[in-house]
Amino acid sequence: MLQQNDIRGPAEDTLPDYRSYRPLTVEDVPERLAAYAEVASTLGGTPADWQVREVGDGNLNFVYIVTGPSGSVCLKQALPFVRLVGEGWPLPLSRSFFEHAALSREGKAAGATPAILRFDGGQALIVMEDLSSHVIWRKALVAGERHETAAPVLGRFMAEALFRTSDLSLSADAKKREMALFAGNTALAKITEDLVFTDPYREHPLNRWTSPELDETAAAIRADAEWKLAAQELKWMFLTRAEALVHGDLHTGSVMVAKDGEAEDIRVIDPEFAFYGPMGFDVGALLANLFLNCFAQSGHAADPKPIQDWVLAQAERTWECFAARFSELWRTERRGDAFPGALFEDQGQHEAAQTALSRYLARLQVDALGFAGVKMARRILGLAHVSDLETIEPPARRAACEKQALNLARQLVVEREAIATVSAACGRVQSILGDRQ
Amino acid sequence: MLQQNDIRGPAEDTLPDYRSYRPLTVEDVPERLAAYAEVASTLGGTPADWQVREVGDGNLNFVYIVTGPSGSVCLKQALPFVRLVGEGWPLPLSRSFFEHAALSREGKAAGATPAILRFDGGQALIVMEDLSSHVIWRKALVAGERHETAAPVLGRFMAEALFRTSDLSLSADAKKREMALFAGNTALAKITEDLVFTDPYREHPLNRWTSPELDETAAAIRADAEWKLAAQELKWMFLTRAEALVHGDLHTGSVMVAKDGEAEDIRVIDPEFAFYGPMGFDVGALLANLFLNCFAQSGHAADPKPIQDWVLAQAERTWECFAARFSELWRTERRGDAFPGALFEDQGQHEAAQTALSRYLARLQVDALGFAGVKMARRILGLAHVSDLETIEPPARRAACEKQALNLARQLVVEREAIATVSAACGRVQSILGDRQ
Repeated sequence: MLQQNDIRGPAEDTLPDYRSYRPLTVEDVPERLAAYAEVASTLGGTPADWQVREVGDGNLNFVYIVTGPSGSVCLKQALPFVRLVGEGWPLPLSRSFFEHAALSREGKAAGATPAILRFDGGQALIVMEDLSSHVIWRKALVAGERHETAAPVLGRFMAEALFRTSDLSLSADAKKREMALFAGNTALAKITEDLVFTDPYREHPLNRWTSPELDETAAAIRADAEWKLAAQELKWMFLTRAEALVHGDLHTGSVMVAKDGEAEDIRVIDPEFAFYGPMGFDVGALLANLFLNCFAQSGHAADPKPIQDWVLAQAERTWECFAARFSELWRTERRGDAFPGALFEDQGQHEAAQTALSRYLARLQVDALGFAGVKMARRILGLAHVSDLETIEPPARRAACEKQALNLARQLVVEREAIATVSAACGRVQSILGDRQ
Repeated sequence: MLQQNDIRGPAEDTLPDYRSYRPLTVEDVPERLAAYAEVASTLGGTPADWQVREVGDGNLNFVYIVTGPSGSVCLKQALPFVRLVGEGWPLPLSRSFFEHAALSREGKAAGATPAILRFDGGQALIVMEDLSSHVIWRKALVAGERHETAAPVLGRFMAEALFRTSDLSLSADAKKREMALFAGNTALAKITEDLVFTDPYREHPLNRWTSPELDETAAAIRADAEWKLAAQELKWMFLTRAEALVHGDLHTGSVMVAKDGEAEDIRVIDPEFAFYGPMGFDVGALLANLFLNCFAQSGHAADPKPIQDWVLAQAERTWECFAARFSELWRTERRGDAFPGALFEDQGQHEAAQTALSRYLARLQVDALGFAGVKMARRILGLAHVSDLETIEPPARRAACEKQALNLARQLVVEREAIATVSAACGRVQSILGDRQ
């Protein structure tokens, strides 16, 4: 659990000086890493022995895997622009600072993150544990592979990371300092504000969709006042509810999975969008991407029902494990300023504390459903799509899956209060899939 | 309206250096003020001509009125502890920095604040317009005096101050910088968190109430799980909802009123509790203090009904004027990242934008009722009471008023969703007053 003295104040948490920043090339990497004793020692041998390969398939950064005689490491360096787009879309180097700050906090609070070997702030560079024996969970899901521990690990991870960075665990003072620190990560939050909550609902040059199959659907959504109103209520929550340090981009592409016989290993990566926001945003992001995968399976598998049932079961398990661990923390680690035990357990009112928890989780679940809805729609109508759907050919087949996903997305956004539970949302998915058969 | 360049970034907005801080005495004041050219010029003559009197009746600071041949000023200096309690309750000098930061922002955004002549950060000292020809609104209300423009001015003030510091008006980037700045004002927020939301619902040495008349009532409230659950949901909102720069202490004692024939002048003072919080908190604070005054009138006036009706009408007017001005700003100044016109008006969907506004105001009204409820209860059961009730003798007569106020407080906190409107809340007040007759 985060202790008071784990929370550094603003003085130590100032942004790095980037004046000496230099983006690395494959050739530069060994010399740079040789300067970091702990990294050099992990790799072994001399820089001449180190093999460097660029593996970044993300949109924003350079990522290298470096292998030496004794071991390997992963090096991630931010660029002062969006890698996918180029220098025309500048993006601050400070995202690396916030990624490191979030990664170290999540690691302490919840584990399941890659170990950090070195953070070089001024170079916007993080050297961490090499996870190249893992695969991105999204890819495994598209391939129909089943990692049974992913949902429980992620449910527990989110419960611990969110609970322990919130007013439920921290003093109001410590929490406000953390919130203020991460409030500096505005450029990344702005990407989410625009790409998730705004652009899909208007004509925008960055939008794309399966065309012409979804042209009418996209136009109907842009004209759908109820949907837009509900989406903007969710954007308001995203902008104003500083509940916990949220990962901010917790989709199935930010999860690495590995299997070795019976043993699995699950890790959460890439928290560069981290900020103080609504807890339901992370939970919803993960649910959204499981729902998207579920609909996409109809485009991949000849007999999709077994894998679809399994994926939906993972959505339910994620929530169940989240709620179970969150409830445990509520009972054993609720030492923050919110819902103080002094008013409940200390007065013998254990039932009231339990009622507060049930109501809290009910609201959080509704929030998560709403955020899941907006996260689904943006992956079909906005700039950034998901390989689950993108790899479906021909387009008509893909569009059929996407229309189903958008059907659910609207229900989640507009009817989230009535749907109320992840379990009921999974029922809606089954019902939409059933309509097609 | 606040412009982007009104919002100074964290570099200029760093806390003052307090190493040269020295608390002033009446004797020291002229020498200190002589160093501020703009103040000396306002006062006229020489420091030997300046009359100084200490007028602070607040709980926290020293306040002096200084009069010279040409004019007068008000000097407010923070102490490193709570004045009411003494050095045993330390309180950071930085509250003066936050008060000045809030006062200048409120002044630009909404007017109706005292003009600032000089801010000396390192001395935790603000020299401002002398309002000693005004009286505290609370005192005027207790005396049964009617200031007809107070409610409209305050409704407009809150609408402008809250709207223009929120994501409805500011870019997400500018708003997050402001939020981070005011997140440093944690010590003052903590007072509210404890004294308003927590202590009244448990046994605590700082609590006091009219005893023995209210002993049973206070004990019943400490055991009232529904009330405490709802109060803690409101505390959660207070801790997490960074919607706008709220004044944080906007009761009738933070309002100065003056009347000169037909002309009235209304000012809002003392925003040292300012932070980014829920808009409903300020609206609720004002409503709470009007409701408290209304119940207290039964203890003061022989025929209280006319003044009670008037006070309740002011609560309704405050909300009506707030909603009217807020609606106007929604239509004409909604240029922030929230509820962007690009999705509504720009697509010809004016009705949808209006629906968004109606829903926004409905939620805000419910929040305000809940916050009004907790603000009422703390003034009867907690540390800080209000003169409206405190001046009622004998205690049995006061306790009768207080029980009625607590009856309403519980309804507002627990049934706020069902009550829904300020108008309905005023109906509940009338109904409670009617029960007594």
